[in-house]
Amino acid sequence: MTASAVSCLTLNRLSLYLRCLRALQERGTQRVSSMELAREFDLSAPQIRKDLAQFGEFGIRGVGYDVEQLVARLRGLLGLDRPHNLLVVGLGHLGSAVARHFASNHRAFHVVGLFDNAPEKIGQPLEGLRVRPVDELVEAVAETEAEIGVLAVPAPVAQEVYDRLVEAGIASILNFAPVQLRQSPGVRCRTVDLRIYLEELVYFLEAEGSPAGEASGTAS
Amino acid sequence: MTASAVSCLTLNRLSLYLRCLRALQERGTQRVSSMELAREFDLSAPQIRKDLAQFGEFGIRGVGYDVEQLVARLRGLLGLDRPHNLLVVGLGHLGSAVARHFASNHRAFHVVGLFDNAPEKIGQPLEGLRVRPVDELVEAVAETEAEIGVLAVPAPVAQEVYDRLVEAGIASILNFAPVQLRQSPGVRCRTVDLRIYLEELVYFLEAEGSPAGEASGTAS
Repeated sequence: MTASAVSCLTLNRLSLYLRCLRALQERGTQRVSSMELAREFDLSAPQIRKDLAQFGEFGIRGVGYDVEQLVARLRGLLGLDRPHNLLVVGLGHLGSAVARHFASNHRAFHVVGLFDNAPEKIGQPLEGLRVRPVDELVEAVAETEAEIGVLAVPAPVAQEVYDRLVEAGIASILNFAPVQLRQSPGVRCRTVDLRIYLEELVYFLEAEGSPAGEASGTAS
Repeated sequence: MTASAVSCLTLNRLSLYLRCLRALQERGTQRVSSMELAREFDLSAPQIRKDLAQFGEFGIRGVGYDVEQLVARLRGLLGLDRPHNLLVVGLGHLGSAVARHFASNHRAFHVVGLFDNAPEKIGQPLEGLRVRPVDELVEAVAETEAEIGVLAVPAPVAQEVYDRLVEAGIASILNFAPVQLRQSPGVRCRTVDLRIYLEELVYFLEAEGSPAGEASGTAS
């Protein structure tokens, strides 16, 4: 199965399973069935079995999954068995918070470079690094072998900085700029658009007095 | 058409169209066709027409859309023609940044309450407000008529604070806690899970040397 055959939704669920399994591991649980996992974490047991089946045989029927083994296989599958280096470009409120968040919470991700063009920010320390000007992106990527760029600059300069990240060799971008970016071929970009998420919540507040559940295809 | 008949994907695209149209408005553009809109912002013209058609007739064939009128209709449709009050609970790096982000960037959203249980944070000023203890949530919702809760507390207490927000009458939650929440009926919750987004990027980095484009259903 090729990477592109796996949907982002499936991948996001694998990440979720991994998180749940780690919680079980911390509590000392050694074996879990899809039913138990589903009950414990408000998931769907058939969905768990179907998602995992795409990647081979994991559990034993009637016995369940070996938690440690499944954690190891999911980590390998998701590419988390080695650390990945991140750069953060744009150190406003959100960019600084994201840099701190990833620097302090995640062993799998290393923040190796911080960039901003504001003269008062260049040279300032943050999480053991010093803020560098955006001009140094190309050399920083070469030095640090960074693979992922976090884009947290203001909307009007986001495309320009996106293009620079791509030019510097970054092929994975987590974008916080509220703007529709023109995508380069071969680059994967995940946009986190807080305003759009709020607008989604507001729509349902207004339209139905906030119904729960998933949107369905049925019209009234 | 009921609210639940509209998918979140469609809604998120409407938000995107609104943002693009506002950019055109700022440049003084009065009329735009779906083709021009698509070309300018890297969107799909048939998709634009299809999305808008769900909500009635907007454009005139061969003439296009009146930008100002379409902005007004989309704002109304998305419930953005009146402001909405937000509470932010959890003022770590991410929560504080999100509070500042929404307080300073968005006229449609008013941050009306900030909550944290850390004694050193209670009473501190932030964006013209004072941080209050989480115990005061119920009275704060009543006082401020807040409709949306931003949940940015650490994972271990997220469920408890989610339940308190719901108890206080909040039915729309934007959740940043990296945890699988047990959802209450009648409450809409959008989770922003930065770690899961990074893991998605890493998977594609590892699996295919970062291919572009959407995941498809074809297996090799």
